[in-house]
Amino acid sequence: MIISIIGGTDGLGKWFARYLKGKGFDVIVTGRDVEKGKKVERELGVKFINDNIEAAKKADIVIIAVPINVTEKVIKEVAPHVRDGCLLMDITSIKEIPTKAMEEYANKNVVIIPTHPMFGPSAPSLFGQVIILTPLERHKNTEWFKKVYNFLKKEGAKIIITTPEKHDRIMAVVQGLTHFSFISLAYTLKELNVDIKESRKYSSPVYELMLSIIARIIGQNPYLYADIQMFNKRIGEIHKTFINCCLELSNVVKNKDREKFVKIMKEAAKHFGSEAKRGVYYSDKAIFALTNELNRLVDMIGEEVAIRNIDSNNVHFGILKGVDGDYLILDKNGKLEKFNVLRVEVFDGEKLKELKKRYLKRIYFDVSVLLKDNVDENTILDLLKSKFDIEIIDVYKGENIEKGWKSVTFRIFGYKKDELREKEKEFIKIIKNIGGKLRY
Amino acid sequence: MIISIIGGTDGLGKWFARYLKGKGFDVIVTGRDVEKGKKVERELGVKFINDNIEAAKKADIVIIAVPINVTEKVIKEVAPHVRDGCLLMDITSIKEIPTKAMEEYANKNVVIIPTHPMFGPSAPSLFGQVIILTPLERHKNTEWFKKVYNFLKKEGAKIIITTPEKHDRIMAVVQGLTHFSFISLAYTLKELNVDIKESRKYSSPVYELMLSIIARIIGQNPYLYADIQMFNKRIGEIHKTFINCCLELSNVVKNKDREKFVKIMKEAAKHFGSEAKRGVYYSDKAIFALTNELNRLVDMIGEEVAIRNIDSNNVHFGILKGVDGDYLILDKNGKLEKFNVLRVEVFDGEKLKELKKRYLKRIYFDVSVLLKDNVDENTILDLLKSKFDIEIIDVYKGENIEKGWKSVTFRIFGYKKDELREKEKEFIKIIKNIGGKLRY
Repeated sequence: MIISIIGGTDGLGKWFARYLKGKGFDVIVTGRDVEKGKKVERELGVKFINDNIEAAKKADIVIIAVPINVTEKVIKEVAPHVRDGCLLMDITSIKEIPTKAMEEYANKNVVIIPTHPMFGPSAPSLFGQVIILTPLERHKNTEWFKKVYNFLKKEGAKIIITTPEKHDRIMAVVQGLTHFSFISLAYTLKELNVDIKESRKYSSPVYELMLSIIARIIGQNPYLYADIQMFNKRIGEIHKTFINCCLELSNVVKNKDREKFVKIMKEAAKHFGSEAKRGVYYSDKAIFALTNELNRLVDMIGEEVAIRNIDSNNVHFGILKGVDGDYLILDKNGKLEKFNVLRVEVFDGEKLKELKKRYLKRIYFDVSVLLKDNVDENTILDLLKSKFDIEIIDVYKGENIEKGWKSVTFRIFGYKKDELREKEKEFIKIIKNIGGKLRY
Repeated sequence: MIISIIGGTDGLGKWFARYLKGKGFDVIVTGRDVEKGKKVERELGVKFINDNIEAAKKADIVIIAVPINVTEKVIKEVAPHVRDGCLLMDITSIKEIPTKAMEEYANKNVVIIPTHPMFGPSAPSLFGQVIILTPLERHKNTEWFKKVYNFLKKEGAKIIITTPEKHDRIMAVVQGLTHFSFISLAYTLKELNVDIKESRKYSSPVYELMLSIIARIIGQNPYLYADIQMFNKRIGEIHKTFINCCLELSNVVKNKDREKFVKIMKEAAKHFGSEAKRGVYYSDKAIFALTNELNRLVDMIGEEVAIRNIDSNNVHFGILKGVDGDYLILDKNGKLEKFNVLRVEVFDGEKLKELKKRYLKRIYFDVSVLLKDNVDENTILDLLKSKFDIEIIDVYKGENIEKGWKSVTFRIFGYKKDELREKEKEFIKIIKNIGGKLRY
C-alpha cells in the first residue's frame, strides 16, 4: 500500500512519514524544498517527489499535511487527482475548512477522513494520544474507515469521532482560548518587563505552573499557532467573550465591588461543579509529584545512582553529591558533573542494578564449591541472589569429587576489581556457613 | 511568651494559632464571633478574648490576621496598645498599606515585622513554604527580628526579605495577574457555557493543566482574592496592560496578520529566555509524573497493593483489579471498592510490606532448628530475610542438644494462616539445604 504525504518533509507530516514507514508502508513525501526533501528521503528511507499531483495519483492513501493557511489551496490542487476508491485525509488542527474543501474537490468515489491528531512531533508514538476524526456520515461505513479506525485502535490511540462543526467549536476553546490567553499573558509579562527568574523566587506552585504552561506554548511553531487562531471561524466570539470578562472583572476591582467579585468567582466555581474538585486533585498530584521527586533526590545524596538524560538518553553512574536549585551534582569517579534536575531521571535500587547491567562492562570471577549430594543448588542460588549478581555455570559429580558431594561452580559479577575482591570474601564466608566447602 | 493573634479564629490566623500553640507558645486569639471563638478555644487549647485591645495589651507578640479590607482599621485600633519592647506583625497578602499603618500607629519602641506567608491554611507545616518579610531598616538589627528569622529558619521556611513596595510590585504580577487571568478564564468558560467534562475528552495536557489551575484558584476564599485585587495599588496597571495585550493580539488575529502574530510570540519567548526552556521542562516533569503514575498503576493490575487515601490517611489492602478513567478498583477479599485515582497513593514492593507491618495484625510461628556449632546464625538470618519476614528469638547450646550443634529458634511472620503454612514448608526445605536440621 502506497501512502503519499503532501507536505511530509516537516513537522507532523514528517512524523507520520517516519511512523508509517516504520509500520511497513511504502511512503511518498512531497514538499516545496527539494534539498530538504532529498534529505528526508535519505533520513527516513521514504521516496521524495517534488510534485503533489504525481504523488496523489500514485497513492492509495493521500494525507494532506501542509500548513493550515495553504491547506484549502493544496486540497483544491491535489484532491481531483486522488484515484477512485482511494482514501483522502488531512491532519490539520481545524476541520470545517478542509472537510468542506475535500468534499468539494475530490471525486465521488474517494473516501474522505478529515483528521486532527491532538499531539505534536515530539510524541514518541500514537499510544495514548487523542486523534479526532470528522468524516461525513456516508464515509463511516466504508472499508477504508474501518481500516483507519482499527489501525489507530491497534496503535493505542484514543479515537474521537465527531462533526467538523463540533470539532471547531470545541477547539475554539480547548486550543483557541488556551493559546490566546497564555500568549497574551506572555506578551503582558514582556510588556511589564517582569524578570521571570526573579519573580519565581516569590512564587506559589500556581504561578510556577502558569509560567510553565506559557513557556510550553510560546516555544511552539508560531505560524501553526497563528493559523489555529486565524482559520477557526469561531475564535472571534471566544476572544470577545474573554476580553469582555476581563474588562468586567477589572471594573469590579476598580470600583472595589467586593460582593460582585465574590459572586463572579462563586458562579464560575459552580459552573465547574465536580470538575473543580477534580482540577484541584489533578494539580495537587502534579505539584506533589514534583515536590516528592525533589525530596526523593535529597534522600539519595551520598548514594550510588544512575542518571538518565531524557533528551540524549545517555546514562551516567556515580555518587549523588548534592541537589542545588535546578541542578544535581554527580561524582563520577572523582569528577563532578552537573545535571538539570528537570531534564533527568534518577534511579537507585533495582533499576540502578538493571541499568548497570545494561550499560557497564561487567567483570566476574568463578568459584567452585563442594555441596552435599542431596542439596538442591538452585535453592542455594536463589538465596545468594539477594546478595550477589550470581549464576551457576557448572555442576559436576564423579571422578575427583569426594563421595556424597558434588561440585558447583558459581560465577559472580561486579563492575570493579576491589568490589569483586570484597564479594569473594563475603561469598566464601556465606558458603562455609551453609554447609559448603571450597573445592581447592 | 504570649502571642495574641487578632483574627485568629479563622483561615490562616487560626492556622498560626494552632501551629504556634503546638510549638509551646501561650496563644490568645480574638474574633468578632464569640461562639466561634469559644469553639476554637476548645479545639486548639488556646485562650479566646473578645477584645482586640485587651489581647494586644497582654501579649509579647501581636499578630494581625484579619481580612485585608479591615486590616488598616484594626491596626489603627490595636497598634497603640502593643507594649513598648514588644513585637507587632501582620500576615496580610499586601504589604504597603499594613506596613505604613503599623509604623504610624504603633509606639516607637515596638518592633514591626510585616509578613506575607505565601501559603494557605491547607499547608501541613512551615517546611518548604515561602515567607516574605518587609520590615523597615531600623527593625532589622533587633533581637525580635533575629528571633523571628531563626524560628522560621529552624522550621524550614524559605525566607525572603524585601521592601513593602517591591513586595506589592511583584505580587501584583505573581498573585494579581495570575488570579485575575484565571478567574477571567473561569468566568469566560461559564459565559460560553462550556461543558468542562466533555471538553476534557478533546484535551491536550496543556488544557488539562489550565483547567486544574483555574479550579485551584476559584476554589479559594473569594473575599481574600477580591481583597488581593482591590488593595494592591499596582494592580490597575497590570489589568490595563493585560487587557491591552489581549485586545492587540485579538486584532492581529482578526486582521489575519500572520507575521505580526509570529513576532509577538517570538518576542515573548525571547523575553522568557532560558526560563522558557525551564518552564517546558517543569511542565514536562509534571505531565510525565501524571502519565507515569497511570502507567505504573496499569502495570500493577492483578497484584497485591496498598492504597492510601490522602485525605483520610486510611490505608486499604487488596488486589488491584483495574484502572477505569479516574477510578481504581480494589478487590478487598472479594469485595470490590472504588477509589479516586487523583486522591490516593498506591504502593507495592517494600513500601507495601512496610504498610502491612504497620496496619495489619501479624501472626507467626516459631521453629527450632539445629545448626552446626561453628555456623554464624546471623549470616543465615541475613540470607533468609530475602525470603521471609523473620527473626531469631533464641539460641541454645548444652543439655539436650547433640554435641557440635546448637539450637536456633526462628520466628516467621505473616498475615494469613494459609500463607504461613506455605512459608513453613518453604522454610524447612531451605534449612535442610543449608546444613540445618529440625530439632523435633
